[in-house]
Amino acid sequence: MSTTIDIRLPDGAIKQMPKGSTPLAVAQSISEGLARAVLSASYNGTTIESKTPLIEDGDLVLYTWNDANGKKAFWHSSAHVLAQALEQLYPGIKLTIGPAIDSGFYYDIDAGEYNISEKDLPTIEKRILEIARGKHDFHLREVSKEDALKFYQDADNSYKTELIEGLEDGTITFCDHDDFTDLCRGGHIPNTATIKAVKLTNIAGAYWRADEKNKQLTRIYGVSFPKQKLLTEHLALLEEAKKRDHRKLGAELGLFTFSQKVGQGLPLWLPKGAALRERLEQFLRKAQTKAGYEQVVTPHIGQKELYVTSGHYEKYGADSFQPINTPADGEEFLLKPMNCPHHCEIYNASPWSYRDLPIRLAEFGTVYRYEQSGELHGLTRVRGFTQDDAHIFCTPEQLNAEFIGVIDLVLYVFGALGFQDFKTQVSVRDPKKPEKYIGNHKLWDEAEKAIIRAAEQKGLDYVVEEGEAAFYGPKLDFMVKDALGRSWQLGTIQVDYNLPERFDLQYKGSDNSMHRPVMIHRAPFGSMERFVAILIEHTAGNFPLWLTPTQVQLLCVSEKHEKYAQKVSEFLENNEIRALVDNRSETIGKKIREAEMSKVPFMGIIGEQEAAQETVSIREHGGNDLGTMSLRDFAALVESRQAAEVKVFETN
Amino acid sequence: MSTTIDIRLPDGAIKQMPKGSTPLAVAQSISEGLARAVLSASYNGTTIESKTPLIEDGDLVLYTWNDANGKKAFWHSSAHVLAQALEQLYPGIKLTIGPAIDSGFYYDIDAGEYNISEKDLPTIEKRILEIARGKHDFHLREVSKEDALKFYQDADNSYKTELIEGLEDGTITFCDHDDFTDLCRGGHIPNTATIKAVKLTNIAGAYWRADEKNKQLTRIYGVSFPKQKLLTEHLALLEEAKKRDHRKLGAELGLFTFSQKVGQGLPLWLPKGAALRERLEQFLRKAQTKAGYEQVVTPHIGQKELYVTSGHYEKYGADSFQPINTPADGEEFLLKPMNCPHHCEIYNASPWSYRDLPIRLAEFGTVYRYEQSGELHGLTRVRGFTQDDAHIFCTPEQLNAEFIGVIDLVLYVFGALGFQDFKTQVSVRDPKKPEKYIGNHKLWDEAEKAIIRAAEQKGLDYVVEEGEAAFYGPKLDFMVKDALGRSWQLGTIQVDYNLPERFDLQYKGSDNSMHRPVMIHRAPFGSMERFVAILIEHTAGNFPLWLTPTQVQLLCVSEKHEKYAQKVSEFLENNEIRALVDNRSETIGKKIREAEMSKVPFMGIIGEQEAAQETVSIREHGGNDLGTMSLRDFAALVESRQAAEVKVFETN
Repeated sequence: MSTTIDIRLPDGAIKQMPKGSTPLAVAQSISEGLARAVLSASYNGTTIESKTPLIEDGDLVLYTWNDANGKKAFWHSSAHVLAQALEQLYPGIKLTIGPAIDSGFYYDIDAGEYNISEKDLPTIEKRILEIARGKHDFHLREVSKEDALKFYQDADNSYKTELIEGLEDGTITFCDHDDFTDLCRGGHIPNTATIKAVKLTNIAGAYWRADEKNKQLTRIYGVSFPKQKLLTEHLALLEEAKKRDHRKLGAELGLFTFSQKVGQGLPLWLPKGAALRERLEQFLRKAQTKAGYEQVVTPHIGQKELYVTSGHYEKYGADSFQPINTPADGEEFLLKPMNCPHHCEIYNASPWSYRDLPIRLAEFGTVYRYEQSGELHGLTRVRGFTQDDAHIFCTPEQLNAEFIGVIDLVLYVFGALGFQDFKTQVSVRDPKKPEKYIGNHKLWDEAEKAIIRAAEQKGLDYVVEEGEAAFYGPKLDFMVKDALGRSWQLGTIQVDYNLPERFDLQYKGSDNSMHRPVMIHRAPFGSMERFVAILIEHTAGNFPLWLTPTQVQLLCVSEKHEKYAQKVSEFLENNEIRALVDNRSETIGKKIREAEMSKVPFMGIIGEQEAAQETVSIREHGGNDLGTMSLRDFAALVESRQAAEVKVFETN
Repeated sequence: MSTTIDIRLPDGAIKQMPKGSTPLAVAQSISEGLARAVLSASYNGTTIESKTPLIEDGDLVLYTWNDANGKKAFWHSSAHVLAQALEQLYPGIKLTIGPAIDSGFYYDIDAGEYNISEKDLPTIEKRILEIARGKHDFHLREVSKEDALKFYQDADNSYKTELIEGLEDGTITFCDHDDFTDLCRGGHIPNTATIKAVKLTNIAGAYWRADEKNKQLTRIYGVSFPKQKLLTEHLALLEEAKKRDHRKLGAELGLFTFSQKVGQGLPLWLPKGAALRERLEQFLRKAQTKAGYEQVVTPHIGQKELYVTSGHYEKYGADSFQPINTPADGEEFLLKPMNCPHHCEIYNASPWSYRDLPIRLAEFGTVYRYEQSGELHGLTRVRGFTQDDAHIFCTPEQLNAEFIGVIDLVLYVFGALGFQDFKTQVSVRDPKKPEKYIGNHKLWDEAEKAIIRAAEQKGLDYVVEEGEAAFYGPKLDFMVKDALGRSWQLGTIQVDYNLPERFDLQYKGSDNSMHRPVMIHRAPFGSMERFVAILIEHTAGNFPLWLTPTQVQLLCVSEKHEKYAQKVSEFLENNEIRALVDNRSETIGKKIREAEMSKVPFMGIIGEQEAAQETVSIREHGGNDLGTMSLRDFAALVESRQAAEVKVFETN
């Protein structure tokens, strides 16, 4: 029997190590620095501890703070320390669950008689750091179901016993550190000492097992870091995100509102917001026309039958807005949750030959999807939204070219709106589960290759994720980083073999027989609502000049200059520049401050001299003084700035 | 006791006539010609026969063929003759009802064992004319309920006895002519001889009392005229209307389609139709922006509560698309049947001062209203349509100016779309029933005066109709004549005192206290769907140049000219001219014929010479040859033609 094992690292290198070596030991064999940074690991695709002995050949991935999995282990371990601190401070409380989440961790406890509140959080934070400094190792150990149940029965904790009842004997593990033990599946950092900074961010109620019939528990949210500096940065980011919150800025800038009577999650676009949205639509419409798309308009409802055909009714019917009955005729309609079934019916309204394809049908289609009221959030999680939707019906041979065309369009949109930092993901089949996917396997092969080839040809920074494809086709997703470093999924290009089948879409091929077209769904913005929300937060309301509601605020030094200001405003409007006149009897200083607040890109100051010389003094948002210039020069300046932002869309 | 009575004519003249004189005698006392033309009359507002003796003072209106009431009497009388002819040809059939309708008349019969079909109609027409030539007088006589019942019991006609059961004794009349008698409320022409021409247009099934649980009857539709020439003209018009039917042209021109799966009455706008519609919207949007409107966007659903507040739920709820339930949260939504409640909520989202008013909120808002499937018709009667809606919130003092502004906008729209012939109607309160109307009477007075003043100031051809106002406010309607002489109601301007009350709309006046704004609803197109339908029929698909889908069809004489044709097409597109290239390998003759069929305003013929000289030979739709010209000259020609059609909207 061999006493060594072969450990393959992500770069393909093989390390021969003594059997029983830990991931930490592997890291150490590479460098001390790496060993210090390792937080967690996975072996043969399963998450393990950094100190789990490796006893067979396999693939090892080491995770540090820079990996999502590393952060997860860090935060999950921090939740253990939070629980320990809580037990010390509030003896007799009952622990339930405490997972890592995307932005930190939480622990739900039954606080019993204690009334823990916001003001207690600093004390808990202090205790967490005290414990952490003890450099306690995390140890994962297997426990029999009987012993596990006995442990928590002794502790009189029915939550944990309920959890254990649901587990299979032989799969149960406990994690110990210091004097603290918790039921746990694993995935910890080596010891508590790396937790250098912690912030408990919120305290809230949460039902046991998320069921409102159960007892309400106390949930404490937190986030922790391996360096104090990272926490400071994180808090600054949170502060900035709060300032940029699109709900707050949307109200301040008069872009949209909600009404209790109309219903939650249903935005009402105010004039400035509607105009901004219209400009976004016209911008995309123009680029799409150049790219050979044709606009269509379809109703916001469809017969239930339509969604039975598409398969949406079976899949989502029960969780959707319920059917609309008619007073007579016995019909049943549904609010449309997507535009594709309608577009398939438009395709089916005419016969097509291979010479007609591709057909690209676009629609700014408003769809309605039910979300529980608790899940609604500003414009990012709504119940009604307008997709910048389009469906391309093409031959399999056209797939590569169509993908390239859509990528061009998406990159054009990102460029004009200041999103520079993005990655892409190609989602393909799980090669081990071919039965999960509908459609011809040869076509899938070709489609996946066509997408990857398109990504290559456009020089995209892409990863291929196996098993991430939808059952009906592979896809390409764009993940965009905003100015605060947050990632948003914007822009999906999705191949679909399912709807062409279900709607029996056909075209006559060059062989004179009938074929199935391939369908591509795509939406560069995704939805107008979510996109505008992201754009508000990305730009902090300082929209690109071409898009912003008011481009110039004309500030009269005194009321007697109003007439000339109106003349300037008319001149600018005739030059398609959006101007507003501020002729209130306020001081010019106050007017400038307010224009700064409302984020108008240019202020045009109009006083005695400007009126006499028919000029305007221009000041940029942020304070830069561009001096006095003629109206014509100013119009030319605005035009050239806009042109630099939005170049004409060029197709490949 | 006086033996004469005073009869006042519409022009105010008083005729003193012997008591018992008939309307016919009054006509005779004026002129023989008038007497020959009189078909029916009304006395003190009640429709009477031309031979009813007048026994008290009153107001007399004489109706001829030129009046709707005259036609109604003519067609109603013709229905009697139709019934008589049917009884003669098909002994034993049972008569039910036979009213005049807008475009003629029909009679519903229980045909018993007979199977009357389309091919029998000429025979029936012939018999009608034979009877008519007998110059039989129509006589209306009172019958007791008992006698009336006995008459139809003897005839074994349970339909008529059922009708009589529902009538009050003392109000029942029969009408006799020749050997024929029918239960009838009156309104006949003097005798059958004026019926000179008849056409039975259709035979169809109809349920007794329009209830599908009842027996199905046979309905025969017809139309009749006092001159053969009028029938000939009428048939020619029908033929032309059939050719122009927007359902037929809409399909031929690829503008819209319907899908059984999406649902009846829910149009799908195909690319050409959607583009045409978008041009109409942008055209109005631009004019509205100039007129100080602001666009908003609101969702297509609203909570039931919203429509309870607006009063729509109580009034229309049961006959509308039924409420949409949610899977959780227990909410109830309705498809929005109009945009006003949403706009009221937008108004209420901010506080307003009198200085901010008027606020003009516009939206191309798609609304959904349930119509029974039998009532649906192409784009003119649909279940979902987009209103070019706007709501003006203003002070009572601003009403006159706002009305003038809206009239300007409506006239601008009509002008740009070739509707030259229209009338207007001002609908005001019934002065005798002040209790029917909500809102302050002084405000009503002012509003009615403001509307009439606006109509005067704009030099409109208007009539004032008392009692035609809605309960919530007076209004101004535009009735437009299309190219076939048919009248369409297009463009309504409606004052509303009701919604401001129900939504508690307010503004702070110059007196610093809160006031109610007045609301104006207005829609120059009415709905995009209905307007496009009317426009198709008005223009026979020959849309104004600025609006038409393809402005130029470029016809290659042979395939080798395709490259140059593409170059021409690109040049035109860069000049915002919509061009299509026909590069099929067909003869130029066939291409010209097909371009004529598709109603493209210009054909650009491209052959050897044009390609060599970089010119294009232009031929107008209809055959006019404009000769060879440079591309630049042609672009200038198209531009000047369009500019002449759509001048820039100027506000007053």
